[in-house]
Amino acid sequence: MTQSNSRTYRLGEIVAKLGGELIGAPDIEIRRLATLESAGPGDLSFVTHAKYLRELSNTRASALILARAHKGATTLPRILCDDPYLYYARAAQLLNSEARPSPGIHPQAVIETGAEIAASAAVGPFCHVGRGARLGERVVVGPSCTIGDDAQIGDDGRLGPSVTIYPRCAIGKRVIIHAGAVIGADGFGLAPEAGRWIKIPQTGRVVIGDDVEIGANTTIDRGALDDTVIEDGVKLDNQIQIGHNVRVGAHTAMAACAGVAGSTRIGKHCAIGGAARIMGHIEIADHVTITATTFVTKSIRNAGTYTAVLPAEPAREWARTLAHLRSLERVSKRVHELETRSKPSTRKKR
Amino acid sequence: MTQSNSRTYRLGEIVAKLGGELIGAPDIEIRRLATLESAGPGDLSFVTHAKYLRELSNTRASALILARAHKGATTLPRILCDDPYLYYARAAQLLNSEARPSPGIHPQAVIETGAEIAASAAVGPFCHVGRGARLGERVVVGPSCTIGDDAQIGDDGRLGPSVTIYPRCAIGKRVIIHAGAVIGADGFGLAPEAGRWIKIPQTGRVVIGDDVEIGANTTIDRGALDDTVIEDGVKLDNQIQIGHNVRVGAHTAMAACAGVAGSTRIGKHCAIGGAARIMGHIEIADHVTITATTFVTKSIRNAGTYTAVLPAEPAREWARTLAHLRSLERVSKRVHELETRSKPSTRKKR
Amino acid sequence: MTQSNSRTYRLGEIVAKLGGELIGAPDIEIRRLATLESAGPGDLSFVTHAKYLRELSNTRASALILARAHKGATTLPRILCDDPYLYYARAAQLLNSEARPSPGIHPQAVIETGAEIAASAAVGPFCHVGRGARLGERVVVGPSCTIGDDAQIGDDGRLGPSVTIYPRCAIGKRVIIHAGAVIGADGFGLAPEAGRWIKIPQTGRVVIGDDVEIGANTTIDRGALDDTVIEDGVKLDNQIQIGHNVRVGAHTAMAACAGVAGSTRIGKHCAIGGAARIMGHIEIADHVTITATTFVTKSIRNAGTYTAVLPAEPAREWARTLAHLRSLERVSKRVHELETRSKPSTRKKR
Repeated sequence: MTQSNSRTYRLGEIVAKLGGELIGAPDIEIRRLATLESAGPGDLSFVTHAKYLRELSNTRASALILARAHKGATTLPRILCDDPYLYYARAAQLLNSEARPSPGIHPQAVIETGAEIAASAAVGPFCHVGRGARLGERVVVGPSCTIGDDAQIGDDGRLGPSVTIYPRCAIGKRVIIHAGAVIGADGFGLAPEAGRWIKIPQTGRVVIGDDVEIGANTTIDRGALDDTVIEDGVKLDNQIQIGHNVRVGAHTAMAACAGVAGSTRIGKHCAIGGAARIMGHIEIADHVTITATTFVTKSIRNAGTYTAVLPAEPAREWARTLAHLRSLERVSKRVHELETRSKPSTRKKR
Repeated sequence: MTQSNSRTYRLGEIVAKLGGELIGAPDIEIRRLATLESAGPGDLSFVTHAKYLRELSNTRASALILARAHKGATTLPRILCDDPYLYYARAAQLLNSEARPSPGIHPQAVIETGAEIAASAAVGPFCHVGRGARLGERVVVGPSCTIGDDAQIGDDGRLGPSVTIYPRCAIGKRVIIHAGAVIGADGFGLAPEAGRWIKIPQTGRVVIGDDVEIGANTTIDRGALDDTVIEDGVKLDNQIQIGHNVRVGAHTAMAACAGVAGSTRIGKHCAIGGAARIMGHIEIADHVTITATTFVTKSIRNAGTYTAVLPAEPAREWARTLAHLRSLERVSKRVHELETRSKPSTRKKR
Repeated sequence: MTQSNSRTYRLGEIVAKLGGELIGAPDIEIRRLATLESAGPGDLSFVTHAKYLRELSNTRASALILARAHKGATTLPRILCDDPYLYYARAAQLLNSEARPSPGIHPQAVIETGAEIAASAAVGPFCHVGRGARLGERVVVGPSCTIGDDAQIGDDGRLGPSVTIYPRCAIGKRVIIHAGAVIGADGFGLAPEAGRWIKIPQTGRVVIGDDVEIGANTTIDRGALDDTVIEDGVKLDNQIQIGHNVRVGAHTAMAACAGVAGSTRIGKHCAIGGAARIMGHIEIADHVTITATTFVTKSIRNAGTYTAVLPAEPAREWARTLAHLRSLERVSKRVHELETRSKPSTRKKR
């Protein structure tokens, strides 16, 4: 997260590690990635779309990442590649290898007996790790986290501050969880009895695969009986809500504030837009895109893009649209009347 | 939350405690509840709807909870009852009595002078309990909670990790609050003055009744002057937002991500769907159902179901619907023109 | 937040400090502000709108804040002013000056070497303050907060419990941040590669101006390369999500659960309603109002109110509206047919 511990790389080194065709001096030192607008000497910038090419003339970047097709768009030192956005991601990873805290358990952490914490793991101050919990190699746990009894965090996991992992939840390898996320709180299970709600114990777990990222203040409920499952490579943004017994398929990404109600199964490689909502007890196929703010009310069997979005309008225009929407019944009747009136005359002609 | 401390029950014991008609051997040992699909030996499963009866032939459950009408649907040992879902809830409660932590205050908690904590209560590590705060009998407070000055938690309350109770808030008996919930932060009270916002001190409290459950990362704001009130038996799911001076009537349930703006009063026994939004300064009657994602803009005087939901469609279909919606004005004009054109001719005939 | 440390004021003192015209005895003692309905002896109440004047006859308040036009609406002691709501805000600030905790660092906080904390600041128990972090004069940090390396909090800042400030974020003066808010977690930056997501390091910061207020469990992501910026005087309610590289203009207010996707720029003096959503990579002009739950999909160039809200209806009515909406295409065709049918006859007449 911080750049302070990063070292510089020469252009030649970057290309040696990440590929691409270098046009320019390989010994130019690169300090960081930057946008075209804010780049200065020592910065490597990039163009992800032709429409930004006109900004090239103003950039102060020391070098650029460009698509091969844009080879001639500048005389600055440049790396040509197939996918500049992906190359930028890789280069940023290279230049911003995060500073890892020193291994060890902070003296102000409380570790219950029977917890197993790898010697290479780092546990921050004010963390509580329950009985039987297991933290893998190189796991980093930020301050004030709670890891419940018998919970597991796989190798190279990283938890931000104030994350809660409820008991028995199982988290895979290389999982990143940002501050305030809550994994494994009780699902919303209630049975009605004479106007009151009887709580149904939530005895399933949350099981999270490898290479998952979970945003700040996101909540994933434990299953009622069976588990809630987040498969490998899933990326969840901030403030997402995943209900009990949901399954999110591998490599699906969800933008912030999306919500999935209980027992729904979402396919692999889906893209769920921000604040989209998905009803409970339905199934979404693989490779489905749901646009931001859309509400999915029934199962989707085929890949494709699904939406139901009303874009904002000036209030006066919207008031008219809404009035027309409410007069639809009347318009329909008027059309019917016109048809009736016009048909008899037609009949007469026969 | 964990099953580890549960003991087994015989079918005969279960029926003796919870009622129902047992068909089968009363000494069959039951270890846990399970779904039809995942059940194995030692598991008690259940059928809540006729459509699941066909799955009975494949289940490996040791016994079943069935509606009396489905008595003949299996030859497995079974408990017949009026409401299998409610019976499941009761049986799950019986088999999953939660392990209570030992009473006492963790040495790594900070308790200010003047706080009163029952000897039977358990306060986890890294909790801060303010002056004059009172925790009732058998209250359990998870790690890293903050209980403000003069706040109260009634008997048998249970707080998950990292819960914040702001000063002076009063919480009833048997209230469950999940991780990350924030009770009593300032309401959003601002007075405009020459283009700037002047903060209005929020001096009311949050008052929560008995048997309330509050989901992970849910926020309930304190009142501006009077209190925000959550009545007995209310169930709030995760990531719900309750504005200042709202009153939620007894036994109302709200699904995740619902939001209620300031000063609104919601009746008793209402059901508010996920991500539903309710405007401020309105009143909702008792026994009102609001469907998921619906926005309520004005008071609702009568019981019933209210909605305004646009279900997702394939993007191409939605684009057409939207285009038609925007052409409503034109269609309406064309209908009017047709009417005008058809009427004169009618008049001529007279 | 608590009234316990407040002292009483005489009406004359209040008018001397805040202005307005006093009608009545200046030595009447005022203990607190209260609503007309709940006020009793010692309470100062207020009327913000003519429709509440009829409640004046029943109030037990000792004095009132009234608009000059309502001078004759009561015989109770009263302060006449131009804007009673603003006067109420000012009077409430006067009567509810918050109790400040004693300066100092709680012995149960962990302060890393190189952190600079003003002697007048107060840091609660279980806080972790990273290397190089700087806390200004009179800053108050609630329990269980995490302040990352090199983060800054300006003079008179106030953090509720369990707030996370990620490394290098910079917060101005007099900023209030409520419990559970997360400032500076990674933005949602991913590059697709052969069906998988490659994480893009988020190396920008969050920069927050002076006099900003941030609600409970709100999340503001750090920038990908450049910073996410919240300008002076912005007020954010609870559970708001601000994506990476967003800029929110000065004195803009957003109600709870609003969300702004990455790289969007919102103008100054805007009002964003609750649960409103704003698409990424767009621009909103100054002085724009977005109504609650509205989704903004494209840039807004002009001041004004924008909306697209479907108000809840009884379910049966909505079902009809939805059916008509879906039959729009057919209605449109029928109108076209009627037009075609009517036109030839017109032509014939010529």
